[in-house]
Amino acid sequence: MPAPQEFIKYIDDKADAFIQRLSDAVAIPSVSSDASRRQDVIKMANWLSEQLQAVGVTTQLTDLGKQQIEGQELPLPPVILGKIGNDKNKKTILVYGHFDVQPAFKSDGWDTDPFTLVNDKATGRLIGRGASDDKGPVLGWVNVLQWHHENKKELPVNLRCCFEGMEESGSEGLDDLVARESKPGGWFDGVDAVCISDNYWLNTRTPALTYGLRGLSYYRVTVSGPARDLHSGVFGRTVYEPMTDLIYIMSKLVDNRGHILIPGVEDQVGIADEEEKKIYQALDYSIQDVEESAGAPIALSSDKVEVLMGRMRNPSLSLHGIEGAFSGVGAKTVIPAKVSGKFSIRLVPPQTPESVDPFVISYIEELFKGLNSKSKLEVESLHGGKPWVADHNHWNYEAAKRATWSTYNRLPDLTREGGSIPVTLTFADCLGVNVVLLPMGRGDDGAHSTNEKIDRFNFIEGTKLLGSYLYEVAV
Amino acid sequence: MPAPQEFIKYIDDKADAFIQRLSDAVAIPSVSSDASRRQDVIKMANWLSEQLQAVGVTTQLTDLGKQQIEGQELPLPPVILGKIGNDKNKKTILVYGHFDVQPAFKSDGWDTDPFTLVNDKATGRLIGRGASDDKGPVLGWVNVLQWHHENKKELPVNLRCCFEGMEESGSEGLDDLVARESKPGGWFDGVDAVCISDNYWLNTRTPALTYGLRGLSYYRVTVSGPARDLHSGVFGRTVYEPMTDLIYIMSKLVDNRGHILIPGVEDQVGIADEEEKKIYQALDYSIQDVEESAGAPIALSSDKVEVLMGRMRNPSLSLHGIEGAFSGVGAKTVIPAKVSGKFSIRLVPPQTPESVDPFVISYIEELFKGLNSKSKLEVESLHGGKPWVADHNHWNYEAAKRATWSTYNRLPDLTREGGSIPVTLTFADCLGVNVVLLPMGRGDDGAHSTNEKIDRFNFIEGTKLLGSYLYEVAV
Repeated sequence: MPAPQEFIKYIDDKADAFIQRLSDAVAIPSVSSDASRRQDVIKMANWLSEQLQAVGVTTQLTDLGKQQIEGQELPLPPVILGKIGNDKNKKTILVYGHFDVQPAFKSDGWDTDPFTLVNDKATGRLIGRGASDDKGPVLGWVNVLQWHHENKKELPVNLRCCFEGMEESGSEGLDDLVARESKPGGWFDGVDAVCISDNYWLNTRTPALTYGLRGLSYYRVTVSGPARDLHSGVFGRTVYEPMTDLIYIMSKLVDNRGHILIPGVEDQVGIADEEEKKIYQALDYSIQDVEESAGAPIALSSDKVEVLMGRMRNPSLSLHGIEGAFSGVGAKTVIPAKVSGKFSIRLVPPQTPESVDPFVISYIEELFKGLNSKSKLEVESLHGGKPWVADHNHWNYEAAKRATWSTYNRLPDLTREGGSIPVTLTFADCLGVNVVLLPMGRGDDGAHSTNEKIDRFNFIEGTKLLGSYLYEVAV
Repeated sequence: MPAPQEFIKYIDDKADAFIQRLSDAVAIPSVSSDASRRQDVIKMANWLSEQLQAVGVTTQLTDLGKQQIEGQELPLPPVILGKIGNDKNKKTILVYGHFDVQPAFKSDGWDTDPFTLVNDKATGRLIGRGASDDKGPVLGWVNVLQWHHENKKELPVNLRCCFEGMEESGSEGLDDLVARESKPGGWFDGVDAVCISDNYWLNTRTPALTYGLRGLSYYRVTVSGPARDLHSGVFGRTVYEPMTDLIYIMSKLVDNRGHILIPGVEDQVGIADEEEKKIYQALDYSIQDVEESAGAPIALSSDKVEVLMGRMRNPSLSLHGIEGAFSGVGAKTVIPAKVSGKFSIRLVPPQTPESVDPFVISYIEELFKGLNSKSKLEVESLHGGKPWVADHNHWNYEAAKRATWSTYNRLPDLTREGGSIPVTLTFADCLGVNVVLLPMGRGDDGAHSTNEKIDRFNFIEGTKLLGSYLYEVAV
């Protein structure tokens, strides 16, 4: 059934208040990968839990124990479990989101302070770290519940919430919790379907439902030699330099057309036939879209299908950077003693981190052996997640399609996404139910990037979409 | 003539006070390559000028104008010109040093705060950024003058000082000043010889005089594509990634044996004949020395002569790092939009930055052209200095040899150094006089590195050495 008109009107009327709440959330720099920000992630958990309680959600902060990071022990941020209703005659829907964010510094190239939400009336953009990934969508659920709570309206479904604070750092500790709570008597017992709003439209025009995600395997390759950094004048051409070996290894991982050079990795994935290619041809997407969201004419191909398949159904390898080398401005003449190259591979079925790791690790060890270097090598798989594909004809998807139609008056693109949300697979596996990804933001939101934004339009209409979904999925 | 015994005794008696003054100097973080530290470099200039005046030096702070760095305009730190004496019957000696330092952060791997001098009684080490490069030696001159001033002793020579604050950043603005002051009537008019204490013993045992220096040419290679950093999940394998092209280019510059892969660069330098090799065979130096100072068994060869020639008479290329890529801890899944690789080449005669730049720039541009990338390339030569070799039989060197004998009771190694002090060549060219490099510190001091130190022994005996030199050079 469609959502009540009073609900739709309420969301429009309260828009400014919702934006203020998003601003409050962005102001908490909950960067999960930065040890010095850990207390902010925990602060964010407490803030969000209070917001949920204020709109009638029964919440529980679940401790996940400690984390060893860079030699120090840190408390993991708690997971927020939420609950409304226990009616045997209603479906039970679990919604997931995360309240941690990627690192962000003004010096990365932001036009404004990343942790101060800028409401740009001219462009209609709400700019700030986490605005779209994933604080906006999480608060979308809170917005929906606020109407029901203030107006004493019963939800059409039993609702379960799972909001975590380590998504950007491998969702450490979450898998065990989901497995535990999925058992009889657990918090998620009786869940009929899952809805996750943590991704993006393919373009800037067309709503989307996502039924597939790439997995991820993140690697750190460390080469070390001297006991300390050295002066390149005093030691240049007298010792083996770790940077020279690391750069050589990093240069042998991928070519600039995106082909992965590690033997065995590409072979795991089948070639697309003409049938499969039609799916990508049908999507409302153009080379211009990808170049607009990238901000430059740098697409790998002029063939739309090839570019879309590169993002959705092929693995990719990206070089992220080097830890321990000179990364500042100016001209420092140093020979770094210990350097760690960071790269990751996006995985697609049937690849898994476990199936890819051996190829990657043995290949790099072989490369290094061939260098006959006196430096030392360490190859580590930091974290990973399996790829995922779901049945997009399931009633859970049909409900999301109807909600999209009633909100945007058009049918969604059915997409597979290049990003990875490992927990998607955890829910699918542990609960054995269908999971739908119902994105709020657009393809140019710049998640993980500088000047991340969500459009006011998407934040407000997206809130209506999430509410409508709960009604459409109810029957 | 030898230095007076009262002078030698005074230096021993005042050791603790001298170390306190070094501690005060290290506490000023005068990092010339960091725009945010520029005021500290200027503060250091004023502090040093006051120290010099207090020991009877007539000083003048010479403004060098402004510098454009990373889009902002900064005042260049002033050069300190100093003067004692104008006696026609005395030689006039110019001493040079610098009061700026390399960048240093505890997070680089320092065991202690880089800008707090640690007086480690157990090891006899004075640990802190600039302790050896070059605040220790500069204050050595101040220590020498303090005895003469307090005891109203006339110096055996006319003294001229030139202390700058941009040595670690290409000595910007100094060449013009030296050229100007070398003219008749200028501050350096009448200088008979120059003494620079800004390098190191070859090992940890044997005093040295240095008659040759490598030059330097520092490069920045920038590859840029997207308008902002991108999410590797959303854009991986859809666009050209700048990091992939930059890493490829950096991997084609040098091999891990130190051979420079840029055609033409090595060819500029002649091969050493057996005669020349004997010079290096004669030095008090072993593979163990280089590996001890590097802190690991990583020498490029087991042949002492090959390793020494690699440092002293062959060019070297070191990869320093990348600006703009992910350099933090943790696992950020970013596609950096604009990345700048930093590397430098140490030059030997007859190489000059001007003769090397065309080979480097055209080679990199050709490599990039071969990649057919849609990213953009920029190759820049940031700064450079010519190499230098002097006559080590000149009376200026003979005086330094006698001073070394009287201080350490042994003759110095005659070395060529791998580092570059471009101003050495400027003085030699502008004044047309002999320049001697009279090092105070040891080969394991770790200049430009973490835990930089100078041994208390070298700081105190080195002060006696500088004083003795002024007496030995006088007649």
